[in-house]
Amino acid sequence: MNRKLGRASIKLERPVYILNSASVVGTKENEGPLGLLFDKAGKDDMFGCKTWEEAESTLQKEAVGLALDKAGLAPEDISFLFAGDLLGQSIATSFGVSAYGIPLLGMYGACSTCGEALALGAMSIAGGFADKVVCTTSSHFASAEKEFRFPLDYGNQRPLSACWTVTGSGAFVLGQDMFCSSGKARAQITGMTLGKIVDYGLKDSMNMGACMAPAAASTLEQHFTDFADKPEDFDKIITGDLGKVGQRVLIDLLRERGFDISEQHMDCGMEIYDGQTQDTHAGGSGCGCSAVTLSAFILKQLQEGSWKKVLFMPTGALLSKTSFNEGMSVPGIAHAVVIEAVS
Amino acid sequence: MNRKLGRASIKLERPVYILNSASVVGTKENEGPLGLLFDKAGKDDMFGCKTWEEAESTLQKEAVGLALDKAGLAPEDISFLFAGDLLGQSIATSFGVSAYGIPLLGMYGACSTCGEALALGAMSIAGGFADKVVCTTSSHFASAEKEFRFPLDYGNQRPLSACWTVTGSGAFVLGQDMFCSSGKARAQITGMTLGKIVDYGLKDSMNMGACMAPAAASTLEQHFTDFADKPEDFDKIITGDLGKVGQRVLIDLLRERGFDISEQHMDCGMEIYDGQTQDTHAGGSGCGCSAVTLSAFILKQLQEGSWKKVLFMPTGALLSKTSFNEGMSVPGIAHAVVIEAVS
Repeated sequence: MNRKLGRASIKLERPVYILNSASVVGTKENEGPLGLLFDKAGKDDMFGCKTWEEAESTLQKEAVGLALDKAGLAPEDISFLFAGDLLGQSIATSFGVSAYGIPLLGMYGACSTCGEALALGAMSIAGGFADKVVCTTSSHFASAEKEFRFPLDYGNQRPLSACWTVTGSGAFVLGQDMFCSSGKARAQITGMTLGKIVDYGLKDSMNMGACMAPAAASTLEQHFTDFADKPEDFDKIITGDLGKVGQRVLIDLLRERGFDISEQHMDCGMEIYDGQTQDTHAGGSGCGCSAVTLSAFILKQLQEGSWKKVLFMPTGALLSKTSFNEGMSVPGIAHAVVIEAVS
Repeated sequence: MNRKLGRASIKLERPVYILNSASVVGTKENEGPLGLLFDKAGKDDMFGCKTWEEAESTLQKEAVGLALDKAGLAPEDISFLFAGDLLGQSIATSFGVSAYGIPLLGMYGACSTCGEALALGAMSIAGGFADKVVCTTSSHFASAEKEFRFPLDYGNQRPLSACWTVTGSGAFVLGQDMFCSSGKARAQITGMTLGKIVDYGLKDSMNMGACMAPAAASTLEQHFTDFADKPEDFDKIITGDLGKVGQRVLIDLLRERGFDISEQHMDCGMEIYDGQTQDTHAGGSGCGCSAVTLSAFILKQLQEGSWKKVLFMPTGALLSKTSFNEGMSVPGIAHAVVIEAVS
């Protein structure tokens, strides 16, 4: 039996396999430290489209298509698609994945959506409701700046605490069998801890790392409690896009609660760009940041045996331009997924 | 075993019970034909708040609180919350439900979200991942007009094909046992058909019924195929907010495909207002429309034995003001949930 564990966690009776995955990124990500690992990069960030939003939809469409190709599967083999993005009414998703004709479950958890989609996707398989599903998320620097902050044409300055939204989309094919036509699965999902909203009252949308770190700390503490495990049980504890500022807050908050994750912690946003030369300030962010890093880098480490077990925990900042301009705070949320190497 | 059925459906091995539910609405809904059935109505549509968005959050907060009270449960008894709304980045949800501290799965399926949330909520219980969950959605006339069309202050005219967004929120407590401290469950969920995006290329955001009807037809046809059932097997086949125009399109589309649902079809948007006297044109719409009608009216019919089995299928129009202004079409999506009386 699948098992609810403690307040907010689930231990899967049988693992759910990440059969294959794909990552598609923009030019800046391609020039960054992980550049060589991504499956595909655009020649420019328009991806042949007329608007930033269409470009983001194209990212998602290509990532899903590529993941299916790599897994040797067709859209008809996929029961459900769990997908989301950062734009209002998730339009990058709506116009990105519709051509596949796969029944769609739209998700919104800001930048935590990749964790939410993987968790629900894995649950749908582990519960016997689906044989194979695809989970995908995307973000695009230009569509996100327009959606959350200022049009790019304003050329506004960004404080050092700001993150740079990743232009990219990652897609993951999950299945119940360890093998598919493309061979052995890349990794396996064995459990998850679902996060609640945590609001410390911070209001600075240019410092989302600090806004999200309390939620990351909450989900991590809950995970350690529910699973009765500890930081040392993981090769890496991976957040989505806390960046440099958020990382410090997270490590401090957890130390106060008796957990030292300074050895294990890694942040996708801090891996994807070279902060020194790429002018990205605190790090990368966005729904696509954790997704492409998982597909291109984290799963590679698990597949090659460098790591055995990681906790993958994308973090989301729950704001809109309306809530921000109406003076509301920026609450956070984080969903954690336990991903292990396939032995 | 739970069973994937056909292309897009699920038959639950054991039913999931709707233990209790609640509906909170605005003044116009309270004055409509279902007015006496709702649990609570605001004195005005601000609900004591300073902004429309906060008012919508309050709707959701009160609906969840009331549903828990009616079920005799506390937030700690609830494993997960499946919730969503229509606003960009789902801020009505973020600021509505955070106080409960329940792990949150944010959904976005436009006005189909109530179906999506009930489907995934029921799956999380049927899969053994949760004991009890809450599903909630909301919409607010004023926050939706501002988000999708024009600020109210413009006083713009609305064509007769336009719908009126319902100010309201419905919340549903799902559980695996037929009884809870408040007594026998209101109804049971026994299966679902999850929809794909259907895009006929329509671009009129003032005629969302026509935009969504093809998706409703697609999900319904899929349901009849997957379950090998027919319109006569249901007392009612209930769409969320197609309105008068969408209803005609849906019935015509299905007739072409060999199904006559004209006897069974009911649309929540056509029940909630009196089109003659309330100036609402084609009918009600929004994430809250199907949710409050389900809680106040549909579940009542099932509980009282007037109906035995219904197909509840909220319909969503996947547009944003950005996609609309960039000339994109308005695709639709619909998720269907089989709800039966508890015998």
